[in-house]
Amino acid sequence: MTEAPHPEAASPAAAANPADDLSFMALALRLAQRALGSVWPNPAVGCVLVRAGVIVGRGWTQAGGRPHAETVALSRAGAAAAGATAYVSLEPCAHFGVTPPCADALIAAAVARVVVAIEDPDPRVCGQGIRRLREAGIAVTTGVLAAAAARLNRGFLLKVEANRPLFTLKAATSLDGRIATRTGDSHWITGEAARRAGHGLRACHDGILVGINTVIADDPALDCRLPGMAGRSPVPIIADSTLRLPAAARVVERAREQPCWVMLTDRAALDKRRLLEEKGVRLIEVESDRDGRPAPNAMAAALAGLGLTRVLIEGGGTIAAAFLAAGLIDQVAWFHAPVLIGGDGRASLSPFGIERLADAPRLLPRETRAVGGDRFSCFDSSGDEDKACLPEL
Amino acid sequence: MTEAPHPEAASPAAAANPADDLSFMALALRLAQRALGSVWPNPAVGCVLVRAGVIVGRGWTQAGGRPHAETVALSRAGAAAAGATAYVSLEPCAHFGVTPPCADALIAAAVARVVVAIEDPDPRVCGQGIRRLREAGIAVTTGVLAAAAARLNRGFLLKVEANRPLFTLKAATSLDGRIATRTGDSHWITGEAARRAGHGLRACHDGILVGINTVIADDPALDCRLPGMAGRSPVPIIADSTLRLPAAARVVERAREQPCWVMLTDRAALDKRRLLEEKGVRLIEVESDRDGRPAPNAMAAALAGLGLTRVLIEGGGTIAAAFLAAGLIDQVAWFHAPVLIGGDGRASLSPFGIERLADAPRLLPRETRAVGGDRFSCFDSSGDEDKACLPEL
Repeated sequence: MTEAPHPEAASPAAAANPADDLSFMALALRLAQRALGSVWPNPAVGCVLVRAGVIVGRGWTQAGGRPHAETVALSRAGAAAAGATAYVSLEPCAHFGVTPPCADALIAAAVARVVVAIEDPDPRVCGQGIRRLREAGIAVTTGVLAAAAARLNRGFLLKVEANRPLFTLKAATSLDGRIATRTGDSHWITGEAARRAGHGLRACHDGILVGINTVIADDPALDCRLPGMAGRSPVPIIADSTLRLPAAARVVERAREQPCWVMLTDRAALDKRRLLEEKGVRLIEVESDRDGRPAPNAMAAALAGLGLTRVLIEGGGTIAAAFLAAGLIDQVAWFHAPVLIGGDGRASLSPFGIERLADAPRLLPRETRAVGGDRFSCFDSSGDEDKACLPEL
Repeated sequence: MTEAPHPEAASPAAAANPADDLSFMALALRLAQRALGSVWPNPAVGCVLVRAGVIVGRGWTQAGGRPHAETVALSRAGAAAAGATAYVSLEPCAHFGVTPPCADALIAAAVARVVVAIEDPDPRVCGQGIRRLREAGIAVTTGVLAAAAARLNRGFLLKVEANRPLFTLKAATSLDGRIATRTGDSHWITGEAARRAGHGLRACHDGILVGINTVIADDPALDCRLPGMAGRSPVPIIADSTLRLPAAARVVERAREQPCWVMLTDRAALDKRRLLEEKGVRLIEVESDRDGRPAPNAMAAALAGLGLTRVLIEGGGTIAAAFLAAGLIDQVAWFHAPVLIGGDGRASLSPFGIERLADAPRLLPRETRAVGGDRFSCFDSSGDEDKACLPEL
């Protein structure tokens, strides 16, 4: 769809206006956010094309990672892109992948100016996109809402820079931190609204990691069951050192249609490997930790190697504790139900060696809100990001 | 202080205006709130005198329960009380106690109208105050902000109607519900702001109840340490079946200056009783439960008998669990610190026999807010009150 330029515009080449830059970049980030969880191994990017104060095109990375945000926005704008300012939440790519570089597409469309939130650390891009634009005579502004953009793409940045995805720990407990009574009764601690919100968390993550005991106990579907959002389901990943995964588990039964990944160690028997592979399960062997379980760091590296940028850890307490002990939890999403279970209820986290309070992982509060009758709080492991720059995100 | 009537007022006898009634009663409730925790065995009452739209007097129950709110407001208003409307959060008293009845004082001051939130269930009052006013030709409106007034004086109402005080359970835990690491390190889980808020909770309760193990472990002062609010400290109450209370404990050492109550059973040795009584400790023998500990219901009845209307339970987990099991927790004030301790940390609540989730105590969320870096949530055991009527309270 092409929109006409604003009639009052004297010149299509917009001059930089810092307030406009913030507003349009905030919009680009909002668009990018829609892509979180469905574009791995690519980053979630948003693009807004503005000509003479009028938005002439918008786009975000499409499911599976293509087309890129710029391609979508340019095709929307058509000829109106000429002379426009492009707001892009991440540096436009400069390499030929499945599609030609976005930097070249922006040049070909004759945009006048490009505003970039953050550089792409991907070694194939890393400044090349910006350089290419500048060499073509296009004005480039960088660093607009950089902190918010870095937070949004923290998973992608971690994958490129630290060879691991972002990990979000999700828990739904009683006020006293229990996930079930001592007899195992756990349906339901939180209410329907909180459970829906939990599915929303699944939708914005690439993968969902659980321990084998959780699969054996609950046979969870691990998909996104919000109406119309089945396609946003994350990849189920099961940590299962010796392949105790039942062949009749729901995630295995549907493994031909939807991916199912299992992280095992060298202790897993060959016949069980064959059986699961025949069912379509992808087996990923990783190093074991001292307890013989898949080592969190090894799992993190393997998942990044497979392209994942954001992984939700939903349980049980053992895998959550292992990732906490390894310092790999980047975000915590905690639902507290207004119920009290008592000290014989099942703990939400297994022991992970905390003796001194000073050694316990401390998080930064991000957000708290009521979700139905429950309380949802979101926390962040890192304090170096500007919380105030884009509170809506 | 006497204020002149509003110059535009045609007649001092104000006609009823429902919107004004709500506003002035809301103010009376705000004033009453100041008295919570320092007026037992009396109720916390607020009174506002309004003549021709102008507030000519305000008052609330003074520390120790006297003078009453009406007396304070009338003495402020002086002659301006004549023809005024009196807003009182609880029915004016009709009996001679230490002071003459407030109903008589309102009649003597020639107020034109009295608006009452709720009747006083005290059998010495119970409708008598309202009847006496009406018999004197004063217009009386009742039931204005009744739900909010009942919530405010829930402790007093419970004392009169159920022979027990209101119990508030307070906890400060990690997200996973732990109050210390496995080695006992607990200083500090929550931050300074949350600890200050905890002292604010002490200030608005008549008593503070802890188990003997908490006293032996921590030797807590159990007072209100907010600047200038030492006088608002609640009565320390220690549940200690066999009088293990050390004679050198802080609460015992200062028992000559500040009250210290101990709830014991018949298992306590005579010599230890004498020793503590000599130090000024008040011993209250109550029936024991199956485990030989002071029975929660017996403690509740004894405390109501001694005049307490609001008791804060701060720990440890055993006494909290006992009161939960007895169905005696009316409010929960929970501070969650953004820290994770793990399954070997100390539980905030001892086991109290919950096997089915349906049997676990469920609460109604009242309020959630950030307190420093921590999250404070307040819950209510009862659902029959109108939450929306006075959200500021």
